[in-house]
Amino acid sequence: MTLRDTTKQTQWVYSFQDADGDQRNLLGGKGAGLADMTAVGLPVPPGFIITTEACRSYYESGKTMPDEMWAQTLEALQELEHTTGRFLGAPSDPLLVSVRSGSPVSMPGMMDTVLNLGLNQNVVDGIARRSGNPRFAFDLYRRFIQMFGNVVLGIGSKHFDTVLQANQEKAGVKLPSDLPPEALQLVINEFKEVVKRETGEDFPDTPKYQLEQAIRAVFESWDTRRATDYRNFNKIPHDLYTAVSVVAMVFGNMDDTSGTGVLFTRDPSTGEKKLYGEYLVNAQGEDVVAGIATPQKIAHLQVQMPEVYKQLDQMAMQLEQHYRDAQDVEFTVEQGTLYLLQTRNAKRSAKSAIKMAVDMYEEGLITKEEALMRVEPDQIYQLLLPRLDESAKRAAKDAGNLVTVGLGASPGGATGKVVFTADEAAEQGKRGVSVILVRPETSPDDVHGLIAAKGVLTARGGATSHAAVVARGLGKPCVAGAETVDVRPDEGVFHCGEITIHAGDELSIDGATGEVFVGGIATVEPAVKDDADLVTLLGWADEIRRLGVWANADYPRDAEMAVAFGAEGIGLCRTEHMFFEPERLALVREMMLAAHATIAIQEGDAAQARYMSSLAELEKLQINDFEGIFRAMAGKPVVIRLLDPPMHEFLPPYEELLAEVIELRIKGTDPTELQEKENLLSAVNEMRETNPMIGMRGCRLGLVYPEIYIMQVRAIMTAATQVASEGFVVRPEIMIPLVSHTNEFQSLRDTLEGTIQEYRAATGSTQTYRIGTMIELPRAALTADQIAKSAEFFSFGTNDLTQNTFGFSRDDVEAKFLKRYEEAGILKENPFQVVDEDGVGQLIRMACALGRGARQDISLGVCGEHGGDPKSIEFFNTLPLDYVSCSPYRVPVARLAAARAELKQNAAKGGE
Amino acid sequence: MTLRDTTKQTQWVYSFQDADGDQRNLLGGKGAGLADMTAVGLPVPPGFIITTEACRSYYESGKTMPDEMWAQTLEALQELEHTTGRFLGAPSDPLLVSVRSGSPVSMPGMMDTVLNLGLNQNVVDGIARRSGNPRFAFDLYRRFIQMFGNVVLGIGSKHFDTVLQANQEKAGVKLPSDLPPEALQLVINEFKEVVKRETGEDFPDTPKYQLEQAIRAVFESWDTRRATDYRNFNKIPHDLYTAVSVVAMVFGNMDDTSGTGVLFTRDPSTGEKKLYGEYLVNAQGEDVVAGIATPQKIAHLQVQMPEVYKQLDQMAMQLEQHYRDAQDVEFTVEQGTLYLLQTRNAKRSAKSAIKMAVDMYEEGLITKEEALMRVEPDQIYQLLLPRLDESAKRAAKDAGNLVTVGLGASPGGATGKVVFTADEAAEQGKRGVSVILVRPETSPDDVHGLIAAKGVLTARGGATSHAAVVARGLGKPCVAGAETVDVRPDEGVFHCGEITIHAGDELSIDGATGEVFVGGIATVEPAVKDDADLVTLLGWADEIRRLGVWANADYPRDAEMAVAFGAEGIGLCRTEHMFFEPERLALVREMMLAAHATIAIQEGDAAQARYMSSLAELEKLQINDFEGIFRAMAGKPVVIRLLDPPMHEFLPPYEELLAEVIELRIKGTDPTELQEKENLLSAVNEMRETNPMIGMRGCRLGLVYPEIYIMQVRAIMTAATQVASEGFVVRPEIMIPLVSHTNEFQSLRDTLEGTIQEYRAATGSTQTYRIGTMIELPRAALTADQIAKSAEFFSFGTNDLTQNTFGFSRDDVEAKFLKRYEEAGILKENPFQVVDEDGVGQLIRMACALGRGARQDISLGVCGEHGGDPKSIEFFNTLPLDYVSCSPYRVPVARLAAARAELKQNAAKGGE
Repeated sequence: MTLRDTTKQTQWVYSFQDADGDQRNLLGGKGAGLADMTAVGLPVPPGFIITTEACRSYYESGKTMPDEMWAQTLEALQELEHTTGRFLGAPSDPLLVSVRSGSPVSMPGMMDTVLNLGLNQNVVDGIARRSGNPRFAFDLYRRFIQMFGNVVLGIGSKHFDTVLQANQEKAGVKLPSDLPPEALQLVINEFKEVVKRETGEDFPDTPKYQLEQAIRAVFESWDTRRATDYRNFNKIPHDLYTAVSVVAMVFGNMDDTSGTGVLFTRDPSTGEKKLYGEYLVNAQGEDVVAGIATPQKIAHLQVQMPEVYKQLDQMAMQLEQHYRDAQDVEFTVEQGTLYLLQTRNAKRSAKSAIKMAVDMYEEGLITKEEALMRVEPDQIYQLLLPRLDESAKRAAKDAGNLVTVGLGASPGGATGKVVFTADEAAEQGKRGVSVILVRPETSPDDVHGLIAAKGVLTARGGATSHAAVVARGLGKPCVAGAETVDVRPDEGVFHCGEITIHAGDELSIDGATGEVFVGGIATVEPAVKDDADLVTLLGWADEIRRLGVWANADYPRDAEMAVAFGAEGIGLCRTEHMFFEPERLALVREMMLAAHATIAIQEGDAAQARYMSSLAELEKLQINDFEGIFRAMAGKPVVIRLLDPPMHEFLPPYEELLAEVIELRIKGTDPTELQEKENLLSAVNEMRETNPMIGMRGCRLGLVYPEIYIMQVRAIMTAATQVASEGFVVRPEIMIPLVSHTNEFQSLRDTLEGTIQEYRAATGSTQTYRIGTMIELPRAALTADQIAKSAEFFSFGTNDLTQNTFGFSRDDVEAKFLKRYEEAGILKENPFQVVDEDGVGQLIRMACALGRGARQDISLGVCGEHGGDPKSIEFFNTLPLDYVSCSPYRVPVARLAAARAELKQNAAKGGE
Repeated sequence: MTLRDTTKQTQWVYSFQDADGDQRNLLGGKGAGLADMTAVGLPVPPGFIITTEACRSYYESGKTMPDEMWAQTLEALQELEHTTGRFLGAPSDPLLVSVRSGSPVSMPGMMDTVLNLGLNQNVVDGIARRSGNPRFAFDLYRRFIQMFGNVVLGIGSKHFDTVLQANQEKAGVKLPSDLPPEALQLVINEFKEVVKRETGEDFPDTPKYQLEQAIRAVFESWDTRRATDYRNFNKIPHDLYTAVSVVAMVFGNMDDTSGTGVLFTRDPSTGEKKLYGEYLVNAQGEDVVAGIATPQKIAHLQVQMPEVYKQLDQMAMQLEQHYRDAQDVEFTVEQGTLYLLQTRNAKRSAKSAIKMAVDMYEEGLITKEEALMRVEPDQIYQLLLPRLDESAKRAAKDAGNLVTVGLGASPGGATGKVVFTADEAAEQGKRGVSVILVRPETSPDDVHGLIAAKGVLTARGGATSHAAVVARGLGKPCVAGAETVDVRPDEGVFHCGEITIHAGDELSIDGATGEVFVGGIATVEPAVKDDADLVTLLGWADEIRRLGVWANADYPRDAEMAVAFGAEGIGLCRTEHMFFEPERLALVREMMLAAHATIAIQEGDAAQARYMSSLAELEKLQINDFEGIFRAMAGKPVVIRLLDPPMHEFLPPYEELLAEVIELRIKGTDPTELQEKENLLSAVNEMRETNPMIGMRGCRLGLVYPEIYIMQVRAIMTAATQVASEGFVVRPEIMIPLVSHTNEFQSLRDTLEGTIQEYRAATGSTQTYRIGTMIELPRAALTADQIAKSAEFFSFGTNDLTQNTFGFSRDDVEAKFLKRYEEAGILKENPFQVVDEDGVGQLIRMACALGRGARQDISLGVCGEHGGDPKSIEFFNTLPLDYVSCSPYRVPVARLAAARAELKQNAAKGGE
């Protein structure tokens, strides 16, 4: 001991015994795990940890190692030598160490490690003599020079690989460890020449110098491009820094009673409670990583080393008891003796996360609340959707079948034959053919095709388009905005760079990542809609959550699915989706054109008659739709939004018509058809808009063409009365969309209540109802107190609200620059996916307060897509909202997310 | 007197002596005037007023006259009989009365009046006898039956007119008053037959019954369709009701020493201080209204009845002293004796309003503050613009030349030859021809044409379009959205219903009313840009106002005009308007296409080179532009907005290109041109957007194509440095548009400050600058505190802010339903014209508070069109804003409006 006054010094270095495993930020994840395991008496080789604070200090002092830190390191080393009875650099019985990185947040493979440190020719010869195993000794040195050379000295691996390759060929062996001792000595000499050539200096012989250099190298691996990019991508702060563990080496590569492996305490893919993992005999850890030999399943160990297996089994239980979670453990066996080198919470599949959480609660290991926090809500969603098999996808990538990457607009995977029109999709779909619908851009006309297809790919449009929204609602994968794709439906092909794909070719899409593959890829079907563990877990979630979870559903079949998934109501039934059904579109078109004619062209009575007769037809169909939904939702509220989109969405696209007209004009062969098309073109032209998203739609439509809303409300009341007469409780809630001013709402409410009174008077119906509005325009949020005076409920349409608060046309900005914004850090997240708390969230907060202030019992919900996003739900839970509504497939996600949000909020309150 | 306890009763009836002229709401305007004049001793015939409260009570009790009211009326009548010494219905010396309406707010011609009430054959004969003038007596009776029959009994005037016509023809005279007594008696008899025929009853003979019926009729005239519509249109509340004045008749139709007339105490069109008006000898008031004889100028009275004229002159002075304003007086002379029947504040032209206000201050009649309140700000605007001559316009209407009525998008009137292209307009304009540019819709390509034209007419687009905004900026009339107009530039015609108008035909437009006339109409040139009175008045306004007044100006010539009009800075210089100049458009187009190519198609270096070289060209031009503006604004701040509109606005319209390509494809004659056009089409297609207004524009453009903003900022700094070197003080303020998130602003600020630092380092320039942003998206307002941390100024872009707060695409909604909204009372005003206080105003208020909270000295202004709207300015004055900015022509309007706003606000505070 020196005379330094250690009381005043920062402690930079902790031995495993002295370290406190709870100080994860100081020790790094690996260091904390080693300290923990040491504390509970598990067989961890002795060692010490240089803290993350030391690393920070290293950077703050311009990449110099403070004297005191090095002094403490040397002290710790001395203690380590004392404990092991071995000495660094002593040829008789040398201590070798590993020098490993370990930051507070796991960054697998991003940072550096040096094994077998402490070797020089002298020491190697000593080991060879003492162990009587020169191959082992020379192999260690070969490994050390290679790793140190690469990690510390920065010499490209290819230089060492070339040497090894040549020598293996010369010796006729496949693995470096199979080289005879003499050959290994040759390799060592050539490695040293490589080092001399590449660095201009000899390979360092002094073990302490090696150690100092290795520690520096680990520190600096925090700051590599690779590590920085990883942290940016995963939103890990850059000021956490890495700790360094210096551990006495144990040797899995000593002989065939030695080995190294990885163990999961439970099966990470099924969650089953049994040891899972693999190991490699006579090997060191990097051999597993490098994949030069095929490891064996852990179960084999039961036969080969029953004692070790029993010990592992015992230790697994101990670790789980300590961490109260499944662990992923690295171990080494040295001549029959087991050592644990690392432990961390095991990564796991969605399915296993759920099973583990439920099992551990039942085992008494964790509470229900903890069980809920163990499963990420989005994992459930993955579980419910078919997806591309990961390894098949990797193989397809390796085979060069990845065509392009678009926007992942609706998750899940699908594989099928390419079709270019919705009709084709519908036709083939009916015949049971799996098809992928490929379109230049989505159009409402395509909906029936999307329903029939397994998935959809579009060249234009964001996660935006009507069809993408429908896809999410249906739980079908959609890749949108694949801008490099040039779709030519007329020619029955699409091009993507050099590749040309024809109708009928197989295509696979991953709607989560946006990947598009040529050829088929195996899909994995949703494992467990009725998974008992999931049911249990969601039951616990329901006990805890405060927010109701409703579903957005437009058809009876969606409503049924939503109920099956646990929806407590329909928060958004978009009536226009019923209008888009192919067999109705002609009727809707007729209605729209006639409606427009009554006003714009003043065609007068003829148009009026056509308008009224098509409305009457539609009314019958809508009654039928609503009946189905009311039956499915018996007793639960159903919020039905009156017609919302611009009328021209139901008409043929202007440009297609224009092209047809120009062609007919030039050809001049069919004046009658030309006249007809010209009339249609002219009507479409009058109805189309410069900015349709903020044009003539929503309640504006209802105010100019009240007959449409009146028809819809009559259909709602008729269906409700009918279904109620069958013995169901029916709770219709009529929602007026796109209100900006209370007078819009009040005026329509007056009209529609008149309709309802008339209906009741005529039929004697006593069916109740509520009338409310969507809050989806900033002005509605700002004046919510005025609107609440006559609205019985608010439903926040967060898609449009985001659009208007940011002034972002989702159709345009998502493909054109939102990705860039995220990459450049201008926006942390896509605000159409995660609600923007500062802007949009502020408006929702204001509107809730104003609405409740004006009407104490107003019902408040969210029906935008954020209603199914866990992070957004966490925010919504802090507001006085009653429920969130999302697509049926996301209902289980939202149930779990709402429970977790409540738990987090309570924890935060408790912490205050 | 009866024994009724009057203390407990409401007083429904007041004699002129007892009434208090200040109680205008109770007495109505006419009643209050009569009471006032009586009080100051002017010769008013005696009478009494039945109050507006009586009328309210009449309606509230289901159109029955409360007994008490009628009792009070009879008492007042008794008093009147006592005062005049005449008695209603007494043949010897009968009292006749007029029964006149009069609401608190003037509604000229909307409600009813009955003159000469109290006649029956008996009384008439008495008058004939007593006056020795049977013609006079019979004429009175003829008039009474006609008026009572029409107003009270509801008999159409045509029935009476037919009788009169026939009898006049028979007698060979032109005027009813020229009929001999016998003929008049015949007319009377036939009138009575008409009444009997039309109502089934005899014309009532009982004077008190006549009176009761007439009072009812006046009450009920409050509720006619005509009156209700008028109040709706003029935003007059419906619960003001009308009072009824019952006045002893004096007779201007007694003989040639009698007459009736209207007098203005100052010239209502020039403001000159001299009697102005006209009178008719031997006539009653309705003769003047009916226009059956041509009245004489009041000056003639000086010769014909010098005493009366002197009296009038004297009374005018007295009235002005009392009302402290110019009056519009009705008078009657009965056999040389003058009576005043009504007085009210005189309506006046813009010019005279200004002169009167300044004169009256100088005469000591009113204070400066009152003078400012006497001129409506919008009157000044009218004064500065050429307009169609009103009488010429009426004549054109009568001649059936009104073609259609569109949206009045920019006020003023213009007449000129029709041209259908901007180039044609520019060419003819250069040759000094007055032209009206007629387009299907406006396009930025048309700007040079608009500059050259006298006015513009478009079939599509609202008050919206770029060109309409430019028109307002230039002070040129624009009629937009004339939807019945079918423009066919290729054929050189436009159709409107049956009418076809060819290129070269004369057309006239009124940009205030939206009227379009075929043929030329005389225009009245702006009277007085340098009107001394206006200069004086605006000087007073400048002393009082708190808000600064800046101008929106894009060119040096606009800046010069703005300074001449008193602008204290440029609040908005839209650099894209410089880009649209025709000689530059090709260059800008090249730049845009190359910029897009560098990113989208990855053309790489070639595109990059084209991009950079076109930017360099543009930089030279922009330097020149900015120099001109900086010189014009020497010492005053100039806020320059960096490029804002979507790039495809600078490219040829997609549909035109599409049509061309289709044609070329079908013809197949020119493959090279086809290829070129197809390439262009494809680029335009990639760049066009679904909702361009909320798409890739503003700072989003600057973030994706930073080179454009860098070029602009370098041009600003270069120009500023140059102009400063000439001895001017230059204050450039760089404005980043369409910011939604502080990171957008911060990122661009960093980039642009880098540019400025480089420029300074390279040139040694020490030119200062400020960098700020527009607040035009709701999110920017909601997070203004975050943005203010790095922004030195905010300028509220209220056009876009309104658009996004309401979710109203101005291009679409203004033509399609905003008018309906106003008509239906859903919106009181067009929110693009008058700022919406509850929604948009609330955001501005929040943003001001947040901005100032984060940066005490932040500069806050408004640069949307509301900056020139008086009502909006009144609201802005209540916020902590520093200035408003508007088009140069509205600067004087805003100066006055800001002063009035401050006065009103102070008055409101004083009144607290």
